[in-house]
Amino acid sequence: MKSKLLQNNMMQKIISIDAMGGDKAPKSVFGGMNQFLKQNRNMDIHFRVFGDEHQMMQWAKKYPRVLKHATFIHAPEKIKGTDKVAEVLRTSQKTSMYMAIDDVRAGNSSAIVSAGNTGVLMALSKMLLKTLSGISRPAITSMVPAGGGDKRAVMLDLGANLDCDEKTLFDFALMGNVYAHTVGKMPRPRLGLLNIGEEETKGNETLQKLNKLLNEHKDELPYEYIGFVEGNDISAGHVQVVVTDGWTGNIVLKTIEGTAKLIKRVLIDTFKKSIIAIMVSFLLVHVFKRIKNKMDPRSYAGAIFLGLRGYSVKTHGNSDALAFCNAIKYASDLTSADFNKHIAEDVLKLAHIREKL
Amino acid sequence: MKSKLLQNNMMQKIISIDAMGGDKAPKSVFGGMNQFLKQNRNMDIHFRVFGDEHQMMQWAKKYPRVLKHATFIHAPEKIKGTDKVAEVLRTSQKTSMYMAIDDVRAGNSSAIVSAGNTGVLMALSKMLLKTLSGISRPAITSMVPAGGGDKRAVMLDLGANLDCDEKTLFDFALMGNVYAHTVGKMPRPRLGLLNIGEEETKGNETLQKLNKLLNEHKDELPYEYIGFVEGNDISAGHVQVVVTDGWTGNIVLKTIEGTAKLIKRVLIDTFKKSIIAIMVSFLLVHVFKRIKNKMDPRSYAGAIFLGLRGYSVKTHGNSDALAFCNAIKYASDLTSADFNKHIAEDVLKLAHIREKL
Repeated sequence: MKSKLLQNNMMQKIISIDAMGGDKAPKSVFGGMNQFLKQNRNMDIHFRVFGDEHQMMQWAKKYPRVLKHATFIHAPEKIKGTDKVAEVLRTSQKTSMYMAIDDVRAGNSSAIVSAGNTGVLMALSKMLLKTLSGISRPAITSMVPAGGGDKRAVMLDLGANLDCDEKTLFDFALMGNVYAHTVGKMPRPRLGLLNIGEEETKGNETLQKLNKLLNEHKDELPYEYIGFVEGNDISAGHVQVVVTDGWTGNIVLKTIEGTAKLIKRVLIDTFKKSIIAIMVSFLLVHVFKRIKNKMDPRSYAGAIFLGLRGYSVKTHGNSDALAFCNAIKYASDLTSADFNKHIAEDVLKLAHIREKL
Repeated sequence: MKSKLLQNNMMQKIISIDAMGGDKAPKSVFGGMNQFLKQNRNMDIHFRVFGDEHQMMQWAKKYPRVLKHATFIHAPEKIKGTDKVAEVLRTSQKTSMYMAIDDVRAGNSSAIVSAGNTGVLMALSKMLLKTLSGISRPAITSMVPAGGGDKRAVMLDLGANLDCDEKTLFDFALMGNVYAHTVGKMPRPRLGLLNIGEEETKGNETLQKLNKLLNEHKDELPYEYIGFVEGNDISAGHVQVVVTDGWTGNIVLKTIEGTAKLIKRVLIDTFKKSIIAIMVSFLLVHVFKRIKNKMDPRSYAGAIFLGLRGYSVKTHGNSDALAFCNAIKYASDLTSADFNKHIAEDVLKLAHIREKL
């Protein structure tokens, strides 16, 4: 296993970049590439960057390091944040996003990173890259804060599929586990199905049926199956891979974000009202900085579209250089880990269990 | 309206109490009743308390105020936290919980308060009290933090019905609105349907159909219908009544609780690691106290089963006197507001819209 990773690391990594997606593009995109290169001086990486030639050249001049590690390909158009999937799916061939994804399909690069329109990125990725063999549907995946410190849990799906049958959730578990132990460095993670109670009679028939099967084959699974988990088990750190349908996952993710923001606001408001707190706040600067770093969504945000023949990474529309750099890290990690090869192996290994569904 | 409330306030309020439910019962129950009476010296209220005679007498002796305002009725058995609904539904006639709920059915009291087994309380309440005419299914309702300060949003359903059709969600909106403007003191609240995006094409057909109808009849609704809302809109304070199915509501509620706990833990951990923070922490005691009060679940926890012919209020199993006192407050507020009368009025008023579903 180690030698395999080493071998991969020795090959040149080629990542495709949508230079025009996101509110702060292309500035944040170039800043992000530059930051990634600075942090990984010994990595043999190359970017294939798609966007407006003129703008790209202006920014490339400011970042000689990027200039040295990138090829720039002119894309005359771009996808806007307000574009509707149905309207642009067949007419977007000349956009930077389409061309960057198509570069992965053509085999020129292993992964695509974009801060552009989520819906369009997901739809184009699915259309161009196609679903992996043995996987029923691709899923949007991300890390969420779990259990304090730097601990994170992998959660999927976050919105690609509203309704999911047993086979689809089985595949999400398979992919979530591979993601956790390759990119997330969690060997044999604790994996649970999100439900509204821990008893096996809870939830709908799909969940009950899958739970029964996974329990029956517990010893053959590559992850530690812990059964049903509840919404509060995620942040308590009881579970490392949370499997759910896209409807529920999307709502949970947004609820976590919203609650974190609200508490931050309550803290700031309360501190502002205390004269003593203001007086001593300069002493506490480093404490607040540490808390901020731990809760900073830029350090873990970024959603990955798993289950396609190529890696598609999305970062927030308002990503700055740091956030974009982290998104490149996900693309790089998936490539290093040869993620899709592990998926193919597990698909074979678990086929005899899956076919019982 | 004012004279109606006045009139209700002048009548004696009679509330039924399960003295044996919850981890800290009956101590917390008696403490809660005592606290409520202290806070509402001018209210003409009477408790009908069900539980073990011997234990009740011991506690009543310590609280002369409770003794003065209560009737004690012996119940030889009690529901345990581990009891399963299916097993006790028909054999629980002699438990304090059953007898307390049945007291509402018999018309002796207007509301029942219990800290006991949630599943059993909900099932017995539904069986004994029956669903209100014109309402398809009862819903579990609670308040969640929303928008900072003391602001709260009403959310329903929180787990009574996993799947909900258009009519059921329509009824939840109707009940949530009445709850918000009577108990929550929010005149014409902003009401939204929880979804994974704000566009009208998002979500399943049930949501799309209901959204279309509510938009068409916007001017006739007793609430301000704001369309689809997302998970992060709740804590941002954009919405005052959140309508969703019991599956989603339950998961959102537990995610909020879990995230709040995690952030508290991160704050404490980080503070503990800073010597300066420890040194000045005594100066900040009042700041932390204020934050704690604002986020204290005891001040708003308590789930109410709306849509039955009588009010059934559940508070956490580990409720202390303060939490139990707050649960009594909900029961008292529902009674004062003549909640079910408003429901009946709105059922009539909105019938012509509902029948289009």
